[in-house]
Amino acid sequence: MSLLVVGSVALDSVETPFGSRENVLGGSATYFSAAASLLTKVSVVGVVGDDFPLGDLDFLRHRGVDLEGLEKVAGRTFRWKGKYGFDLNSAQTLDTQLNVFESFEPKLGAVARKAERIFLGNIDPELQMRVLDQAERPRLVCADTMNFWITGKRASLLKLLPRVDVLMVNDSEVRQLAGESNVIKAARAAQKMGAKNVVVKRGEYGALLVDGAQRFYAPAFPIADVVDPTGAGDSFAGGFLGLLDRLNSSDPSALRQATVMGATIASFTVEQFSLDRLRDLSLQDVRSRFDAFRHLTHFEELPDHVV
Amino acid sequence: MSLLVVGSVALDSVETPFGSRENVLGGSATYFSAAASLLTKVSVVGVVGDDFPLGDLDFLRHRGVDLEGLEKVAGRTFRWKGKYGFDLNSAQTLDTQLNVFESFEPKLGAVARKAERIFLGNIDPELQMRVLDQAERPRLVCADTMNFWITGKRASLLKLLPRVDVLMVNDSEVRQLAGESNVIKAARAAQKMGAKNVVVKRGEYGALLVDGAQRFYAPAFPIADVVDPTGAGDSFAGGFLGLLDRLNSSDPSALRQATVMGATIASFTVEQFSLDRLRDLSLQDVRSRFDAFRHLTHFEELPDHVV
Repeated sequence: MSLLVVGSVALDSVETPFGSRENVLGGSATYFSAAASLLTKVSVVGVVGDDFPLGDLDFLRHRGVDLEGLEKVAGRTFRWKGKYGFDLNSAQTLDTQLNVFESFEPKLGAVARKAERIFLGNIDPELQMRVLDQAERPRLVCADTMNFWITGKRASLLKLLPRVDVLMVNDSEVRQLAGESNVIKAARAAQKMGAKNVVVKRGEYGALLVDGAQRFYAPAFPIADVVDPTGAGDSFAGGFLGLLDRLNSSDPSALRQATVMGATIASFTVEQFSLDRLRDLSLQDVRSRFDAFRHLTHFEELPDHVV
Repeated sequence: MSLLVVGSVALDSVETPFGSRENVLGGSATYFSAAASLLTKVSVVGVVGDDFPLGDLDFLRHRGVDLEGLEKVAGRTFRWKGKYGFDLNSAQTLDTQLNVFESFEPKLGAVARKAERIFLGNIDPELQMRVLDQAERPRLVCADTMNFWITGKRASLLKLLPRVDVLMVNDSEVRQLAGESNVIKAARAAQKMGAKNVVVKRGEYGALLVDGAQRFYAPAFPIADVVDPTGAGDSFAGGFLGLLDRLNSSDPSALRQATVMGATIASFTVEQFSLDRLRDLSLQDVRSRFDAFRHLTHFEELPDHVV
């Protein structure tokens, strides 16, 4: 089993009602691989500048993450600056500096090309396509995207979708992609555009999996102290694909468990700033919250004589 | 088993992106009893004016709803006018005319006084208290409230809460009551104020039950064609208390099933305007969607060797 993620490795500056951090570790590939590496072997393809503190990724190396595909080039690392209000569900972006990411051209090495499962982080759909063109025989492709590409690179995105097994986006993205306000209808429309399955991430409200004609809803695990929601979506994706790779399956039951695993790991991510909580997270912690998830949503059948 | 609801019986004018209706049947007691009467015997205490088309309630009478406590007095019926945008999650109130409701003084008859379970619809907490003062031996009291009373009649509400087994409010109400933005913490604070259990209704995102220290989350049943969200909360309450009364229980398992039953019946309510969908709803329809709910949220345990 093997998993590849292509995405950003970034330095984030974040302000929430509970504090702020400057130039801390961030990026979609970083959150993804921190989550997924708890469950399986992950290769990262991305780029950082010569200002990037590579030592900050040691905890990933110790978990066996293959960072061969993380290029270091001259220039500054991708930086994102954002702010959350008391409604922690959406960030206000204050600044985005693409820097070395602007001329990023993903190159898959020998190991990465053979990855069985691929996560295409939120980058230009043309780059996402070029990743797939280099992959040899992926059994499952999962892609994120965002409003910027949905409007600005729509044609490329529509070419990509038929090659995507799981489109993983948030409410507003699937609505915008489909031009449809109802999330169920919007997800169905995305399926008609070619995405085999759709996972709609709904922040503190959980995630909806639309798998063929079936639907599955996982709530977010209720967290009393959400400190920083940054990276929740990418660590959700890491938990999701990490479990599918570990199970070596994408049957309907595995997709449901993967959705819960995504929500489980994301619920840890938001408990601290940056990757602080993921850094020391153990598989045992994850397992026990996964099991608590069952208790959170479980209810007994009604006996036939009752209703 | 017997259930009492005290609340409004109203004429609503509603506009949604999918159409509009003028002076149609509405009100908390109406939605509640339409839902609950599918499951148990319900008595209604409320008031209407001499302009109210009592024939519109025949479908409730046919379901055995006891309308003895619905006074008809000189004057105009309570009227509400509201509008929903494409975000169907919250209404904009355009007009509220209390009319005969302004001098409403709930009087419980012989049957109503003996009710084992009581739903206090969203009315002045002083009136809610006077209902409880007339009740003989309720086994379970469930109360709704709203921002207007939370700020305007806070002292009365705080006196009421220790007599409430289930406080049933929406996100913003529990946040406002507790002065706390995190919903989990806000629900805990409401428990400290005296409410034994708290159900937080989250519209299209489902409902959270906080039962002692336990938490249970039921998503909203995904509906592709939401036409009019009016009454979803009160029919949720009707399904919730209707099932508890039918089961004659409020143990943790019954509270979970009741939460799902509330979400189930509410999901029918929003499919049509006013009480149009509830009017012809059968218990068989309800049962089959309740069972579909299990499928929506069910996932298999992870085998021990996997994680």
